[in-house]
Amino acid sequence: MPNPLGLVDALRAFRDGRVSPGAYLAACHEAARARADLAAFTVLATELAPGDGPWAGIPVGVKDIIATADMPTTNGSPVYADHVPAADAWIVTRLKALGASVLGKTVSTEFAWRHPGPTHNPWKRGHTPGGSSSGSAAAVAAGIVPLALGTQTFGSVIRPAAYCGVVGFKPSYGAIPRVGVHPLAPSLDHVGLFTRSVTDAAFALSRLIGRDDADRHGRPLPGFSIDLDAAFAPCEAPRLALVRTAIWDRAEPEQRALLESSAAAFRTAGAHVSDLVLPAALEGLWDCARTLLAVEASACFGALVARFPDRTSQPLKDLVAEGAQVPAVAYVDALRRQVAWRADLDTVLAGYDAILTLPASGPAPEGLASTGDPAFCVPWTCLGVPAVALPAGTSRGLPLGLQLVGPYRNDLALLRTARWCETVLARPVTVPAP
Amino acid sequence: MPNPLGLVDALRAFRDGRVSPGAYLAACHEAARARADLAAFTVLATELAPGDGPWAGIPVGVKDIIATADMPTTNGSPVYADHVPAADAWIVTRLKALGASVLGKTVSTEFAWRHPGPTHNPWKRGHTPGGSSSGSAAAVAAGIVPLALGTQTFGSVIRPAAYCGVVGFKPSYGAIPRVGVHPLAPSLDHVGLFTRSVTDAAFALSRLIGRDDADRHGRPLPGFSIDLDAAFAPCEAPRLALVRTAIWDRAEPEQRALLESSAAAFRTAGAHVSDLVLPAALEGLWDCARTLLAVEASACFGALVARFPDRTSQPLKDLVAEGAQVPAVAYVDALRRQVAWRADLDTVLAGYDAILTLPASGPAPEGLASTGDPAFCVPWTCLGVPAVALPAGTSRGLPLGLQLVGPYRNDLALLRTARWCETVLARPVTVPAP
Repeated sequence: MPNPLGLVDALRAFRDGRVSPGAYLAACHEAARARADLAAFTVLATELAPGDGPWAGIPVGVKDIIATADMPTTNGSPVYADHVPAADAWIVTRLKALGASVLGKTVSTEFAWRHPGPTHNPWKRGHTPGGSSSGSAAAVAAGIVPLALGTQTFGSVIRPAAYCGVVGFKPSYGAIPRVGVHPLAPSLDHVGLFTRSVTDAAFALSRLIGRDDADRHGRPLPGFSIDLDAAFAPCEAPRLALVRTAIWDRAEPEQRALLESSAAAFRTAGAHVSDLVLPAALEGLWDCARTLLAVEASACFGALVARFPDRTSQPLKDLVAEGAQVPAVAYVDALRRQVAWRADLDTVLAGYDAILTLPASGPAPEGLASTGDPAFCVPWTCLGVPAVALPAGTSRGLPLGLQLVGPYRNDLALLRTARWCETVLARPVTVPAP
Repeated sequence: MPNPLGLVDALRAFRDGRVSPGAYLAACHEAARARADLAAFTVLATELAPGDGPWAGIPVGVKDIIATADMPTTNGSPVYADHVPAADAWIVTRLKALGASVLGKTVSTEFAWRHPGPTHNPWKRGHTPGGSSSGSAAAVAAGIVPLALGTQTFGSVIRPAAYCGVVGFKPSYGAIPRVGVHPLAPSLDHVGLFTRSVTDAAFALSRLIGRDDADRHGRPLPGFSIDLDAAFAPCEAPRLALVRTAIWDRAEPEQRALLESSAAAFRTAGAHVSDLVLPAALEGLWDCARTLLAVEASACFGALVARFPDRTSQPLKDLVAEGAQVPAVAYVDALRRQVAWRADLDTVLAGYDAILTLPASGPAPEGLASTGDPAFCVPWTCLGVPAVALPAGTSRGLPLGLQLVGPYRNDLALLRTARWCETVLARPVTVPAP
């Protein structure tokens, strides 16, 4: 079953009696075992039965920095090799309340930072699936689950989604509570989603918005509902701002060419696409994000790397050391800039529906030692604005994607824009069977 | 008019036609001019007419770090000597929407830190009124206004209220938006109120709770209404935790004696008063608050003191220099502790209605060079829990007060407890005429 029904299609099939929830779950479970070669999961559920609720029969892959009380949660670290949390994370509780089942825990880099896991890209063995949400991206791409949870602090949802040819969605900062998600840098950490379509991402988001006061950065989005029976409506032909950013020279020619050809296709389909140069001040976003990351990761992991020098990686130690050098006033200034620039971006985007840009520098690099460069995602993560990775082509047997970025807290509008773009794009061919 | 009607009594008198709003306003205006010797105001309104709304005829003193678009806002600093903000602060907009009038701007220490203004204590010339909300406390104590706005970062509402023999109320952190209030340390800054009674504080709070997303630390309290016709109901005889804290040896004997005699009076009236020793970890609150203050003030004022070395005080420069030395990870840890300890206090207070403790070390010190020691307020400000200063006695011609502290975000319950205590206490005699 390389291409199972997606989330919405599966729920419709359950409702109409065309597929039974139990059979779908069993098929996904079997697909996970059949693709053990991908090393997408750290652990699989031993027994899997439909839950009680509207999502009964839907299996979900849960990134292994997200707590599950009935499965180990290693956080991608040998320090937590045998760790079973006392309680489910907020988002897992929500999924279970909907009736969904956790099919398994998906491989994360160490604490969602750089040190990679063993997961292969389903499109080409020996290539990274991206990270840090490596296993979640691979599991959706390989047709094992219709939905997987990831997190993004720099580029850990959008980049692996692009590398694996699936839809990645990072909601606005604060939209999904992070209670029970191991922090990396709380001012940047987002919970995000991997699905096979924009419709599935929008449908999932509509059920996963919420609030938990224990996440003091939470700021729930206005609720919205998406009818299972109606098609998720795209926007009218959108106004897109093609933003190349200051790091454009790091993009590979084929990735740049895909952006230009996609822009041309959008124009032909009626969209208004115009170049937009961001205000020069926003070039500080990479430094700002780096300061926030290093300081907060240093606060999160300083004691841990000191206590477990043999069980923590050099990249994590380096990050802790980097953050320890930052003066508090520089950190406070970075927090201030983050908020100020978010407002600036809203102003810049006033005449547009979304930014059209790149999710990564190119296709998934060869080798598993690095999960690739997150730089193309960093500005949008730092600003906390919603972002979607859309599959848009292939190159040398690997997927290439686009990234759409919308105004802060207008996630539904961005998803409607992404749905419009999705209808125009030629979807990449499906992942080759093993 | 040394003892004008308080807020609620004035509004009742307006409604019943016993006093006209215009006459009340004019009398307060006249009282302000008559007590120019106090130096409570930096500027007075030249014309004063009742506004349009339920509070028409109510004059308010507004601390001079709170922006007013029609009056200078000096922030207590020569750098801002001629500054007139472009817009009113959120709280001023709210007051004007209620129909209240800004009688004048009240003296603040420099940027609400230490460098004092010229205000005298209305009870005894040559004694400080406390700070940093010096003029607001003095103006209410001298019968010039029934309501004045202050701010508290360390102890700038509760301490001057106690020194001046009025009610001071610091709501829970986040309850009143700080948009348009000059920041000193955003993780600690609160807008607070000075009134002549607990009833007036509760009534004012009920109208001043709100939300403005521009204050990203805002967290509005659940709304509540207080009927102008009904007496503000005290709680049943409360359970009070007498907390002496780790700095008890800094309290003067007469202040300690007042606490003991008040506790005895509360017991006689039916309250349950028992000693409570806070968990030892909470002794870190003073250090935690100091870290937050120094870092955030350094971020706020670093550029300013560099640019205006001749127009900024040594205490402000020292604070900026202190904050510049703090590593970011220590700051992040202080933020973490602040939130964790807030939850700890809720647990500690589970069996009590409020903490009974001191608002200051004793009566207002002699001299205007120092506004006194805020240490008795620092833990509660840092925790963001609501606090009330209650006048409870006098010593050597100066008032002495008590402080009541309640659970986070349960401001109304604390005010009902304070109302109960107020009914038991002998109020200090009114401020002597000049």
